[in-house]
Amino acid sequence: MTQLRMAKDGVLTPEVNYIAEKEKVDPSHLGEMVAKGRVVIPANKNHKDLEPCGIGEGLLIKVNSNIGTSSDHIDLEEEMAKLEASIEAGADTVMDLSTGGDLDLIRRKIIGASKVPIGTVPIYQAVIETVADSGGLIHLTADRLFETIERQLSDGVDFITVHCGLTLKGLEVLKTQGRDLDIVSRGGAFLTTWMLYHERENPLFEYYDRLLSLAKSYDVVLSLGDSLRPGCLADSTDRAQIHELMTLGSLTKLAWEEDVQAMIEGPGHIPLHEIETNIKLEKSLCNNAPFYVLGPLVTDIAAGHDHIACAIGGAVAGWAGADFLCYVTPSEHLSLPSVDDVRQGVIATKIAAHAADIARGNKLALGLDKEMGMARKNLDWEKQINLALDQTKAREYRKNRPPAEEDVCTMCGKFCAIKQVKEYFHG
Amino acid sequence: MTQLRMAKDGVLTPEVNYIAEKEKVDPSHLGEMVAKGRVVIPANKNHKDLEPCGIGEGLLIKVNSNIGTSSDHIDLEEEMAKLEASIEAGADTVMDLSTGGDLDLIRRKIIGASKVPIGTVPIYQAVIETVADSGGLIHLTADRLFETIERQLSDGVDFITVHCGLTLKGLEVLKTQGRDLDIVSRGGAFLTTWMLYHERENPLFEYYDRLLSLAKSYDVVLSLGDSLRPGCLADSTDRAQIHELMTLGSLTKLAWEEDVQAMIEGPGHIPLHEIETNIKLEKSLCNNAPFYVLGPLVTDIAAGHDHIACAIGGAVAGWAGADFLCYVTPSEHLSLPSVDDVRQGVIATKIAAHAADIARGNKLALGLDKEMGMARKNLDWEKQINLALDQTKAREYRKNRPPAEEDVCTMCGKFCAIKQVKEYFHG
Repeated sequence: MTQLRMAKDGVLTPEVNYIAEKEKVDPSHLGEMVAKGRVVIPANKNHKDLEPCGIGEGLLIKVNSNIGTSSDHIDLEEEMAKLEASIEAGADTVMDLSTGGDLDLIRRKIIGASKVPIGTVPIYQAVIETVADSGGLIHLTADRLFETIERQLSDGVDFITVHCGLTLKGLEVLKTQGRDLDIVSRGGAFLTTWMLYHERENPLFEYYDRLLSLAKSYDVVLSLGDSLRPGCLADSTDRAQIHELMTLGSLTKLAWEEDVQAMIEGPGHIPLHEIETNIKLEKSLCNNAPFYVLGPLVTDIAAGHDHIACAIGGAVAGWAGADFLCYVTPSEHLSLPSVDDVRQGVIATKIAAHAADIARGNKLALGLDKEMGMARKNLDWEKQINLALDQTKAREYRKNRPPAEEDVCTMCGKFCAIKQVKEYFHG
Repeated sequence: MTQLRMAKDGVLTPEVNYIAEKEKVDPSHLGEMVAKGRVVIPANKNHKDLEPCGIGEGLLIKVNSNIGTSSDHIDLEEEMAKLEASIEAGADTVMDLSTGGDLDLIRRKIIGASKVPIGTVPIYQAVIETVADSGGLIHLTADRLFETIERQLSDGVDFITVHCGLTLKGLEVLKTQGRDLDIVSRGGAFLTTWMLYHERENPLFEYYDRLLSLAKSYDVVLSLGDSLRPGCLADSTDRAQIHELMTLGSLTKLAWEEDVQAMIEGPGHIPLHEIETNIKLEKSLCNNAPFYVLGPLVTDIAAGHDHIACAIGGAVAGWAGADFLCYVTPSEHLSLPSVDDVRQGVIATKIAAHAADIARGNKLALGLDKEMGMARKNLDWEKQINLALDQTKAREYRKNRPPAEEDVCTMCGKFCAIKQVKEYFHG
């Protein structure tokens, strides 16, 4: 029985009750949202000691951190440190995107150590192992792909990115459209290579029923990937992207019919003025399934600071209705992130999510800012630091430049406006 | 003859021609915008070797960096390094907000070394010197205030923040309104203290004609300050704030009648969903005078990362029509910024301004992102780094984690999507 099936039957699962309590929402209403597919709860039956989280309408916006090795940089200890840093900085979920080293071992370690839901992209492992033992990804078979997916699900992965919406027709649309940067999704690129070589349909699309049956057994959430997401502003919101989004909408309905939870992945690189359109389109074309966006990045030229371009886009996307923000780190487009990059990425995206939660009127979010305003009025520095999204950094600044008078800071020193006016207005 | 007077007479000044050439706009149209007060050109006749910049409708959004000593931290060399870092990182203007040390010396050094327009807040110096020699700011006189303003203008300051819109009536509105954080503007707090003690009107309001005559002599731009800007989200867009904004609108018209250039300062702390309203209100209430916003910050709890909260707000503000973004550094609300904080603040706000320029359809801005997309397609790393807003940081990332294969990066290594697909799509 999946969360979706139980919600349809009107059963309030422990997960629904836990999330409702944590987010101060009505459990029955939350259950209805799960039943309608508007909220997903990634909670694989095999993921021990998971603290469940809900993603979707009416809930706080969630933040995902991507970690994992690459073929160029394999260091399990570093990845475990990234996991810890992600959770400590407030990530609601973590994806293990490892493509280098012992992939089974890394994934199992990460799931074992994580109280937050873990996501993966199983096509990576399927391709990498095929290349390793058969010399090329074209030798990948549908059986091997599904066997890899099942291996990951049985380990306890809570959600998986599956590029089911990529079709031969979609590739034709892409080619006719013409793009500056054709495909920037790794999974999408693997499948495209395979499909064009074999002149065959994407196995994740062709055998979608097989995927649904696996997802149902473990109650894993399908995160329907966007292989054709734009890789630069010039390609955003084009026919190739929207064609795939429509396919994902149909696949979502099929998943729901089989009691499988699903969410939709979105771009990517989008200029500010197209973000709201993208969110509304997803909600409309995919029957209000939760929307999981990567960024979006509002400019292509912020390399070295893409976490900031991502925070801008994420805030506007969240405000417009996106439910789940995948972070980007400062090293995006340049190198695999370090532990510190991961930390910075999570914090930036948390700021974006929080700003959007406020704009959406979430009472929990509004309450924190209200308290901070009062702490500032009262010149209560300990409280200000405790209320900061990043207490470590806030404390560090305060410590490194201590003021001459305890109740102010070195910015204005004795000319602190709040202090002056407080004396006049409140005696 | 001020830029405004000459524009009204249909004269295209060297400054107008320079800016039109640089921003690829029609000089006659730019001249008309200056004549209407929709664009200001801060260029004091006494600022030698100034590279003029235009702020307002139809131009790229400009970014200001605040530097300057405080009573708790006085280090002229460090402030000069902040000036250099600001300009190097792309700040279009710099404000010297010094409140500690030899203020005349610091200001003169900064103006002498700066090719970009310099702004100040003369009330700081007037109050600090009054406190120093008379024991309290209540001893400040109107004559002393205007003498200080003239001293700064004759040094070559290009724009000054003057809190002319703060009135006794406005303070009454503030008191009746009730606020969490009454006043967070330093200049506003100084004037409020003075006004309440003396039960007298703000001299910058009462003798506004005197200010206009000074501004006209040097052709300095008046940046009409918002003393009652909200200091936390809970206070945003309240009656106190909008009352002052309306006063600033009337004062702008008076400035224009005297051929004095003016722009309006705006908040501050505003939730995402109120930003557009704030921009539209300013444009409407102040006859489309350029709008200079501080941030805005979209949450109060990002201490240690307020440059990111500011980038989110600045991008949305710029997209909605703000013309000039004042940066915020990561140390905001915690301490005086370091040189590195200044650098980070400028870069974050440049990203915001650029994202907004793109959303506004600015062709120069769009062109850069188009080039970056093509550099990525071509796996041309040198070009990617040269196109980055922060080349230093981008180069550092690339250098610190060198990939095994030259044409990719360590993020995806040999599984680079662009590389794979390129081979398939383009042979």
